[in-house]
Amino acid sequence: MNSDSEKNYNFRTDLADERRDLYRKANHIENEVEGIEAEEEQIDEKIKVTRVKITNEQGERAIGKVRGSYITIDIKKINLLTEEEQEKACSTLANELKRLVGEKIQFKEDVLVVGLGNEEVTPDALGPNVIKEVEVTRHIINYLPQYIDENARPVSAIAPGVLGTTGIETLEIIKGVVEHTKPKLLIVIDALASRSMERISSTIQISNTGIVPGAGVGNTRKELTEATLGIPVIAIGIPTVVETAVVVNDALDIFIEKLQQEAKSNDYLNRLKAEDNYEQIKEALLPKEFNFIVTPKEIDELILNMSSVVAKGINMSL
Amino acid sequence: MNSDSEKNYNFRTDLADERRDLYRKANHIENEVEGIEAEEEQIDEKIKVTRVKITNEQGERAIGKVRGSYITIDIKKINLLTEEEQEKACSTLANELKRLVGEKIQFKEDVLVVGLGNEEVTPDALGPNVIKEVEVTRHIINYLPQYIDENARPVSAIAPGVLGTTGIETLEIIKGVVEHTKPKLLIVIDALASRSMERISSTIQISNTGIVPGAGVGNTRKELTEATLGIPVIAIGIPTVVETAVVVNDALDIFIEKLQQEAKSNDYLNRLKAEDNYEQIKEALLPKEFNFIVTPKEIDELILNMSSVVAKGINMSL
Amino acid sequence: MNSDSEKNYNFRTDLADERRDLYRKANHIENEVEGIEAEEEQIDEKIKVTRVKITNEQGERAIGKVRGSYITIDIKKINLLTEEEQEKACSTLANELKRLVGEKIQFKEDVLVVGLGNEEVTPDALGPNVIKEVEVTRHIINYLPQYIDENARPVSAIAPGVLGTTGIETLEIIKGVVEHTKPKLLIVIDALASRSMERISSTIQISNTGIVPGAGVGNTRKELTEATLGIPVIAIGIPTVVETAVVVNDALDIFIEKLQQEAKSNDYLNRLKAEDNYEQIKEALLPKEFNFIVTPKEIDELILNMSSVVAKGINMSL
Amino acid sequence: MNSDSEKNYNFRTDLADERRDLYRKANHIENEVEGIEAEEEQIDEKIKVTRVKITNEQGERAIGKVRGSYITIDIKKINLLTEEEQEKACSTLANELKRLVGEKIQFKEDVLVVGLGNEEVTPDALGPNVIKEVEVTRHIINYLPQYIDENARPVSAIAPGVLGTTGIETLEIIKGVVEHTKPKLLIVIDALASRSMERISSTIQISNTGIVPGAGVGNTRKELTEATLGIPVIAIGIPTVVETAVVVNDALDIFIEKLQQEAKSNDYLNRLKAEDNYEQIKEALLPKEFNFIVTPKEIDELILNMSSVVAKGINMSL
Repeated sequence: MNSDSEKNYNFRTDLADERRDLYRKANHIENEVEGIEAEEEQIDEKIKVTRVKITNEQGERAIGKVRGSYITIDIKKINLLTEEEQEKACSTLANELKRLVGEKIQFKEDVLVVGLGNEEVTPDALGPNVIKEVEVTRHIINYLPQYIDENARPVSAIAPGVLGTTGIETLEIIKGVVEHTKPKLLIVIDALASRSMERISSTIQISNTGIVPGAGVGNTRKELTEATLGIPVIAIGIPTVVETAVVVNDALDIFIEKLQQEAKSNDYLNRLKAEDNYEQIKEALLPKEFNFIVTPKEIDELILNMSSVVAKGINMSL
Repeated sequence: MNSDSEKNYNFRTDLADERRDLYRKANHIENEVEGIEAEEEQIDEKIKVTRVKITNEQGERAIGKVRGSYITIDIKKINLLTEEEQEKACSTLANELKRLVGEKIQFKEDVLVVGLGNEEVTPDALGPNVIKEVEVTRHIINYLPQYIDENARPVSAIAPGVLGTTGIETLEIIKGVVEHTKPKLLIVIDALASRSMERISSTIQISNTGIVPGAGVGNTRKELTEATLGIPVIAIGIPTVVETAVVVNDALDIFIEKLQQEAKSNDYLNRLKAEDNYEQIKEALLPKEFNFIVTPKEIDELILNMSSVVAKGINMSL
Repeated sequence: MNSDSEKNYNFRTDLADERRDLYRKANHIENEVEGIEAEEEQIDEKIKVTRVKITNEQGERAIGKVRGSYITIDIKKINLLTEEEQEKACSTLANELKRLVGEKIQFKEDVLVVGLGNEEVTPDALGPNVIKEVEVTRHIINYLPQYIDENARPVSAIAPGVLGTTGIETLEIIKGVVEHTKPKLLIVIDALASRSMERISSTIQISNTGIVPGAGVGNTRKELTEATLGIPVIAIGIPTVVETAVVVNDALDIFIEKLQQEAKSNDYLNRLKAEDNYEQIKEALLPKEFNFIVTPKEIDELILNMSSVVAKGINMSL
Repeated sequence: MNSDSEKNYNFRTDLADERRDLYRKANHIENEVEGIEAEEEQIDEKIKVTRVKITNEQGERAIGKVRGSYITIDIKKINLLTEEEQEKACSTLANELKRLVGEKIQFKEDVLVVGLGNEEVTPDALGPNVIKEVEVTRHIINYLPQYIDENARPVSAIAPGVLGTTGIETLEIIKGVVEHTKPKLLIVIDALASRSMERISSTIQISNTGIVPGAGVGNTRKELTEATLGIPVIAIGIPTVVETAVVVNDALDIFIEKLQQEAKSNDYLNRLKAEDNYEQIKEALLPKEFNFIVTPKEIDELILNMSSVVAKGINMSL
């Protein structure tokens, strides 16, 4: 497999974690991929942290992501967390975030939090929902400093809306705000596409590389990165939708696996399973207008729970 | 195939229309099924009406639905209707509804509209949303008759919530309301499960047989029918979710079809396609907690559009 | 002053507490009114409880309320409570409620919580909002008893809507539900009218006498009481609106007081102040369509905070 | 009365129309004020347009507003408009707006619509609500010109939030967006304070002078005008709140008028009525924390109706 085919591989996931797994599976790599470092930490029964670092060009090419840190926090059954478990999820996020922020800016330097997405579309409302719960302090520090701890960090927050409802590129809005309010770091919250339904609104990816809004579902907008904005950008991404072809591809594997267990499979099916059939499935579904982007029935509650975890995590870390 | 296996057949759709198709396919029936009459009417480019009538026990057994009329209105691309096309959709619904209502009660007799579902869950909010737009007149006729046309029909409307949030069976609430307000007919709006993603919030099924709330997604509640309530019940059902196993089963057929066209299929796959593999797929997915109930990403907008069509249709017909 | 004029006195407040004050002021009574017992308890700096008991007919006639307990909890600046203070407010409500409930029914007997009001009208949304946060258990105890503590009390909850949007009297709905679900006690949450803007969504009145929905703002509906429903009814009422004439009457007093302090008043004004001018002000404002029912600009946040306090208080007490 | 006292006069209304009336009353002017031109047009029974033009410094000083056009559209009982009457209200707004826009920019030049206010606060949600219904075209013209009429004007729209929830001055956000998207004209929608409860969400003021957000209720933010933004700014303002002292002041006049009619008034009261007692009333109410900003109970519905009228009016005009 040469690098060209690697580049063209469609991971249909924005999670570095999943891409690394896919790459290793596709290339039958048992050990770690060159240019990628990874470690896992099981925080408790329900929370797991995976830290993936891409260290060189080879790693970049392998999984199609730029050099940097990609931290994935998986929370099992986020809908059913006890108050204590939720607190744990928030503090886990806060710790990872604090570390990444601390690598980029000084204590007390100004942070702008940006919540991407469309409030009117449930699976896309996570960003704007988080913004509503972020504790903003910049205006108090500017106008009423006597009412706030003198060590408070100036925090501001904005939900810029989406191109479809504003007619304006997100980058155009954020660039203007950054120029006029001069934060030292951006935290951007975005909804992602994932490969797996059970990660919907249950997984958080934090990275220090910025993001390209909407990359996961096929819309390329202009990226929000240090290159385009002039300040470091930390991205918090949460999967909220999957593509039907992805679901079918994975379900097909599970189905063939069962046929194998029941000794009902055959060579052809075994080969089907060994390969990744996403592209063919997609090609089959597309002309029938069958390749919907879907989300679980419970998405309202999942988004509500996750918004709260992310907002509290941000508030604790800043 | 004996009647027992027929009875056990899991159609995983609440649409009589789809069940009839499935039954004919499964039993290789070219003509109409015994005990079932059906006719189609293409209203315009975007709107099609299918009227299925189950006339005897044989028809009942075939598709697992009780005797009565089942009218399906399919609206193509409900998100993109012009104002005029939306008007047409409303009047199509109003006409079918007026006919069914007219068969059961007199002009000016009292109607209660019930919107089932949970307002906080987007794909389940259709019923409560419709209720908000239904024009209620019963209290005006009772208390301020001078402000209303003397031929107005008394209409009342209620959204009783769902068992999970009230702790009360829908039937217990509705029965009480019916006993105290004494309507002559009930119109019940409910979200259904369908087999096909493109029918989500784009298809309306009207039937004069009443309904069993939540039947489509595996919750059996007590039914809302003339037998339990003592007055005729007209059900308006709209598909809003599908099961992953259904999506995968259908996608598998599409996928194998494509392999066949490319001469890449084999006997085993051909047989797979000829059969219905839903049960096996479901069995494979369930232990992996993979059999999610899903809904399209655009569900908010779809529900909004459909709520408006149904409410206007009801208002026009009463 | 004879009892007739007493009966006709328009208190334009639903709070027993305020009525008692008004009655004493109007009748120049320094001590307690005959047939009324009252005690105050300052829970902490922000929370005060006033317990008014009407013990005989004389008390009933004095303030136009039936025999029973009326407990008022005043919470200062509910918008600015710390988490701990909010907890205190909830437990204060829970304690009073637990006592009243305990006087009427046994441990583990069935309770139905009813949230009156219209969710679409911010100052009227308190009841439905509370219902969303009440923990219902009746269905779990009925269907999945293994998942719940065996000492759990069956709790169900319903928001029946308002006559204007359902066309149905609240009593008709609740009566039906009570007959079919057979609770032993009702807790009804309702928005009230108060005399004072600062009590808006900051005061809770609990009484064991039931309520007449909408009494405060001039709509008489059929009452929800033990007499009409056959089971004890505990009412939780929260002021959310005031009438312009009330505001003006009170403001006029404050204004004249200031004129007096500045020695700018005169006999006529002093007399104006000594009297209650509400009726005359109302008569003046009504023909100009000036007697609006108003609510503070911050009502959304006030309702949000109060809904949370009431729901948590109910959950803790049951 | 010298010009200083004029300048200091607190009109507590943002409507030029009301200020002109107040100024004439306060200064006993029967004819038009110097430097102010005004005309009224009764469109139909329910809709009246008043066009006030401030032409020189004297006019500016008189009513504390800068030179320019101030057009007030009054809609009676906006809650009860028929569809036809609503259409009329929209086209009246569209006509006035089209004229003001046409005086400033060319056909097809780019317009940015800005909806000020806080979506979470009902009386402050008008701006963001309008933005949701404005038809944006800029992105279609930029990226998919084949899908839109070639004469379409590029329109974009943004709801920048409020300082209290973003920590960012509105001007900082809008300035950035204007620099990056380079519109030729701004239309800004804002909630105003009025003197009269019946104008709440029933009156629209359009002016070609820009606005100072929040001016009406005592928050001074940086202004949005051609001076600060470099492009013409058309303001659409809708009253949504009033101050208690204003209500009391007006009610006091009505009350004394009634006393006069009943020959119960006296010299002192007559003088009270002839004067404006707002400042004294406010001084009396403030120490008692009684000077609330209030809004009618029906504000949700009023805002809904007005948002729809403004959005449709803007869409028709652009």
